Amino acid sequence: MTTNAHDMTTSAAFAAVIPAGGVGSRLWPLSRPDRPKFLLDLLGEGQSLLRATVERVAPLASHTMIVTGARYTDAVAGQLPMLGEADIVPEPSPRDSMAAIALAAAILEHRHGPLVMGSFAADHVIRTPEAFHGAVRAAAKAAQGGKVVTIGITPAGPSEAFGYIEAGDALEGDSGALHVEAFTEKPDAETAAAFLATGRYYWNAGMFVVRTDVLLGHLDRLQPAIAHGVRELASAWDGPERAATLERVWPTLTKIAIDHAIAEPVAAEGGVAVVPADIDWQDVGDFDSLAGMLAPRADGLVVVDRDVATAHVGSDGALVVGGDKPVVIVGVPNAVVVDAGDALLVTTREAAQQVKSAADALHSHGM
Amino acid sequence: MTTNAHDMTTSAAFAAVIPAGGVGSRLWPLSRPDRPKFLLDLLGEGQSLLRATVERVAPLASHTMIVTGARYTDAVAGQLPMLGEADIVPEPSPRDSMAAIALAAAILEHRHGPLVMGSFAADHVIRTPEAFHGAVRAAAKAAQGGKVVTIGITPAGPSEAFGYIEAGDALEGDSGALHVEAFTEKPDAETAAAFLATGRYYWNAGMFVVRTDVLLGHLDRLQPAIAHGVRELASAWDGPERAATLERVWPTLTKIAIDHAIAEPVAAEGGVAVVPADIDWQDVGDFDSLAGMLAPRADGLVVVDRDVATAHVGSDGALVVGGDKPVVIVGVPNAVVVDAGDALLVTTREAAQQVKSAADALHSHGM
Repeated sequence: MTTNAHDMTTSAAFAAVIPAGGVGSRLWPLSRPDRPKFLLDLLGEGQSLLRATVERVAPLASHTMIVTGARYTDAVAGQLPMLGEADIVPEPSPRDSMAAIALAAAILEHRHGPLVMGSFAADHVIRTPEAFHGAVRAAAKAAQGGKVVTIGITPAGPSEAFGYIEAGDALEGDSGALHVEAFTEKPDAETAAAFLATGRYYWNAGMFVVRTDVLLGHLDRLQPAIAHGVRELASAWDGPERAATLERVWPTLTKIAIDHAIAEPVAAEGGVAVVPADIDWQDVGDFDSLAGMLAPRADGLVVVDRDVATAHVGSDGALVVGGDKPVVIVGVPNAVVVDAGDALLVTTREAAQQVKSAADALHSHGM
Repeated sequence: MTTNAHDMTTSAAFAAVIPAGGVGSRLWPLSRPDRPKFLLDLLGEGQSLLRATVERVAPLASHTMIVTGARYTDAVAGQLPMLGEADIVPEPSPRDSMAAIALAAAILEHRHGPLVMGSFAADHVIRTPEAFHGAVRAAAKAAQGGKVVTIGITPAGPSEAFGYIEAGDALEGDSGALHVEAFTEKPDAETAAAFLATGRYYWNAGMFVVRTDVLLGHLDRLQPAIAHGVRELASAWDGPERAATLERVWPTLTKIAIDHAIAEPVAAEGGVAVVPADIDWQDVGDFDSLAGMLAPRADGLVVVDRDVATAHVGSDGALVVGGDKPVVIVGVPNAVVVDAGDALLVTTREAAQQVKSAADALHSHGM
């Protein structure tokens, strides 16, 4: 499987794989099952997070592949006229990130032969694209040597919101990559501070760069059902048997995240590297992080997607999104008021993580 | 002036005077200059606070008179078909409560001769009408003897939201009224608790019962400009010179509240009495008091004037008024969300007093 590794070290082929799956339930009511977060222009920049991701990887990628729910393929294609039909891979149902990324890897390899691919979330925001490009190029270089390579974000602070990557010694060669000792779950504040004090920990942004044959080889050992299934799917994908094969094989793929299927066990074997990168990277996970990414007005409010009056009394830091009538917030600092036209959310930036329960609360009250 | 006092002790004549002036700016955006609080059905009871007030005094009153802004007379007349045109007294401009009540007293006396009148706010809520009626009858009895009589509400607790009436010894006779020692401004919590510990303090609900000739007599001494002006207006009121007289005289009336013009100075002279009354009385001053008057649903929300879904996560005690789309409140206990159709307010019950600045905030932001 790795016999052609050295053939690739000078190859310019690089495939960007973008799994576009999560609804983003903490951004309800903007995000909904029928209009997931990655299709939204959350920052009011004139394009969706997905399209911004595709445009960000375009200078690097000889191939770009979106793996998304079958219900979203029309919307995705509509937003991405630069892609062809073959670049959008519909999943019949969500089976977590490993199945999605492995399917993309298998299709790419079947079409083009082994190549280096990078997997990037569809709904992250990167404000320093050059730094990102440099990190991905370094990661691709390290990946050509056979490693699973992740990009580790230089922490801006001891955040409890992210998992961390513990780095060790440098890899041989000049890629700038380091061995990964371990991946950690989201820490508490004390642990996060201790991580940062060592200088060896990076935020895990879920970006993996790896040769398709290396990835599928690891899966052969670690998740054989996925490996076998996606190879069978890839063989049938561009022929008349795609639908029948999907229907038969897709439900058999193990539901598991790439972190647990590949990153953690392969790191334990010494097969994962990290490229540290000082990138302005953000996961727009909830309304608090959204508000933090937008410039407040002179009066302290953050106002998005509104052309009617918005005012406050003693409510600095409040976020107001959407709506077609004047809004006044009184005495609720960091309030969050989101009018999606067909539903209204009132919360605070401090409570923003709890918003994922909002739609459920509404359903349980008869909606 | 008091020569006919004894003629009145057996008289059934009683005039209810209802000054209807305040916009209720702490209830924005429900209340507006063009739809003041007293015209609103705040409790969802099928009638406005004003109409509820008129119906409450109807069993007592041989005459009912509304003093209101000229801009509201059509709306008031529309809500009160039981009144005649002569019962609605339009003020060309607001000149505070003393001018309004004195004008009513002078017109009533000019039309009917001296009689006992009671002044009652247009926007208070009384849930125990029988207790109210008993208190007013006792106050009228005491007023026939020449006192200015107020009704003192037995405090439900050491509220800082109301002024207090300090009572002294009982009046002679069997009215149950007590001498008033003094009126106090709204106290702090410690002072309020000290008041209650004495057993001699009552909430001042702004209800005054007094003979018209006694009231006008006090004004002759204490506020001669008002006394002279309203007598002149009353003489002209039901004739062709009303408009001209109003235009000339109304701007000369001293702007002062009845508390400062009459209640406080006459109390200092020993001329005021109080009838203690155990009444369920509420001043629906802001959204906190409104929420407190309404029964919460099983899920802890107070919902008014909505027929679409309303839900919450961790937001017990929240009040949601109006609106035509589903609302979810997340992590904001005691939130207040008021959709008046053309404006949205988001606040909390704790901050409800600050709402009076909301409309100003909006104006300063370009509305």
